[in-house]
Amino acid sequence: MINIVLDVMAGDEGVEANINGALASLDGTFTVFLVGDENVIQHQISQKKNKFPESIKIIHAESSISMDAKIAEFRSDRSSSIYHGLKQINEHKADAFISIGNSGAIFANALKVLGRMPGISRPGFAIPIPSINGTRILIDGGANADSKTENYLHFALLGAQYYQSVFKKINPKIGLLSIGSESTKGNQLTLEAYKLLEIHCPNFIGNVEGTDLTNALDVDVVVTDGFTGNIALKSIEGLAELIKANLLKESQSSLISKIGLLLLKPSIKKIYKRLDYRQYGAVPLLGVNGLVYVGHGRSDSSAVENAINAAVQSVRNDLFSSLEQSIVSTSNN
Amino acid sequence: MINIVLDVMAGDEGVEANINGALASLDGTFTVFLVGDENVIQHQISQKKNKFPESIKIIHAESSISMDAKIAEFRSDRSSSIYHGLKQINEHKADAFISIGNSGAIFANALKVLGRMPGISRPGFAIPIPSINGTRILIDGGANADSKTENYLHFALLGAQYYQSVFKKINPKIGLLSIGSESTKGNQLTLEAYKLLEIHCPNFIGNVEGTDLTNALDVDVVVTDGFTGNIALKSIEGLAELIKANLLKESQSSLISKIGLLLLKPSIKKIYKRLDYRQYGAVPLLGVNGLVYVGHGRSDSSAVENAINAAVQSVRNDLFSSLEQSIVSTSNN
Repeated sequence: MINIVLDVMAGDEGVEANINGALASLDGTFTVFLVGDENVIQHQISQKKNKFPESIKIIHAESSISMDAKIAEFRSDRSSSIYHGLKQINEHKADAFISIGNSGAIFANALKVLGRMPGISRPGFAIPIPSINGTRILIDGGANADSKTENYLHFALLGAQYYQSVFKKINPKIGLLSIGSESTKGNQLTLEAYKLLEIHCPNFIGNVEGTDLTNALDVDVVVTDGFTGNIALKSIEGLAELIKANLLKESQSSLISKIGLLLLKPSIKKIYKRLDYRQYGAVPLLGVNGLVYVGHGRSDSSAVENAINAAVQSVRNDLFSSLEQSIVSTSNN
Repeated sequence: MINIVLDVMAGDEGVEANINGALASLDGTFTVFLVGDENVIQHQISQKKNKFPESIKIIHAESSISMDAKIAEFRSDRSSSIYHGLKQINEHKADAFISIGNSGAIFANALKVLGRMPGISRPGFAIPIPSINGTRILIDGGANADSKTENYLHFALLGAQYYQSVFKKINPKIGLLSIGSESTKGNQLTLEAYKLLEIHCPNFIGNVEGTDLTNALDVDVVVTDGFTGNIALKSIEGLAELIKANLLKESQSSLISKIGLLLLKPSIKKIYKRLDYRQYGAVPLLGVNGLVYVGHGRSDSSAVENAINAAVQSVRNDLFSSLEQSIVSTSNN
């Protein structure tokens, strides 16, 4: 039986959105462990219909970590829902952990409770990005502020294995985010990383640029350090908001453009939905000793449901073993 | 008399677009030196009307550097239009240099011919970015692949002085591009840069994030290293293209949305024009010993005209002296 742990004490929409997402996901083939304040969860559950009462289990946690908590506040906290949830994975009672809470706290607790996969010094977030020809992933999306050369290789191996498993594409193409497509372009770190990727990744296509994150280039996994990755993702997010704000503003300039906006609204909504990574439910933290997914704090119940389904699918596909295998086989090269 | 040097041997639209831009800019109060193949320029000029024949001067250059030329190809080239053009500035025969050519070649030649401003180890590109509340600039937009802590301070001082001079805002607000707004967020380099900016820049507002490049935050000058700056800018450029492609594609799904797009087209065009930094004509390379502007290779004649007008304005405002002054006064602190 597959067991998924869900931290319900997180997210802007509160406990209820998490519980609704969990209940909606159930189909009787797996169990969801709801981790958090037992009384609150019991009370919520008692008010809702559940066709699969056997598929829900409650794990009590005394406290929760707020979205803006700093590392000093949770470093030694062993009472939080994140900590208790991750413990279930560490003790082999469950197969995957999901939280839409404080990503820094999830990262720190995952390192503490689960540790790193053998051979990996820095785990990274794999973030889906929509492009002109389908979804690609960027890794690291911001787990680490500083990276070393070897980290780029690990991000590439983990990212490719994850992409292969989730997007069902054999030998996905790997690109290194840089400031020019030539192998001589880049900063000191990426120039070194380039050489390492060239040796160890047969599907390495070379440097890719910022524009290539979303254009029609044939690349599946874009590797970068967490600092650059975070800034690229947030720059994209900001521009999407700017264009939306401008469309609203400009369309007010005439009746014709007002009508135009009205007629085009369904298309615009579809486009922005595709840009919104909530649709993906949650993103994996690759390189820790267990399957850990972090969702956006703004996730609603359907995003939580998607996250649970994605986690169940990954457990069924034995994602974690194949991630381990991808590192081991490269280390033996 | 103000003298502006224009490298005419550059850009996707060829010599003619440059010459048309130059002729259109003239008003009798300044001279434009056209640098390039004398015969080609003479031939072009002879076929066009020019109300201010006294305001055009031709400087012959035997060769030109192609857009995709590598540094090894132009390192020791002293015959190119870029080299000859920059020589005019170095010999105090002209006040500002403009080219829409190979930015790497302009950067390398500017360092060789003009050198750095005293106290500056790395010059940087100041790129205008549209945001929800007006234009801000990002520096360095990609002149340097690797930066040191002191470079961030120089980018801040030069960027702020440039912003003040061009956008007429006293004491513009300076932000440091990072991965969280708290002072403890960032990579090793930005954490050190933060401390330096805090000491030397009274208008430093702290860290800003990728989303803040284009949102409503009250910041004017965003400081970053050239690697991150290039990737942020190109990520933004890529997303703008993705949204445009998606709008075209989605609107084909129904007659209503087709009509919607048609009615909204003027608004969309306006928005994309604002995103296109060709409207600004050219961006300055700040920190070299002279006023140097680099335009986009796709620039048309009106972009060249804008670039010349901007350069003339900067000479009138004595931009270069104020840039020098901003560095000297901080060094003496």
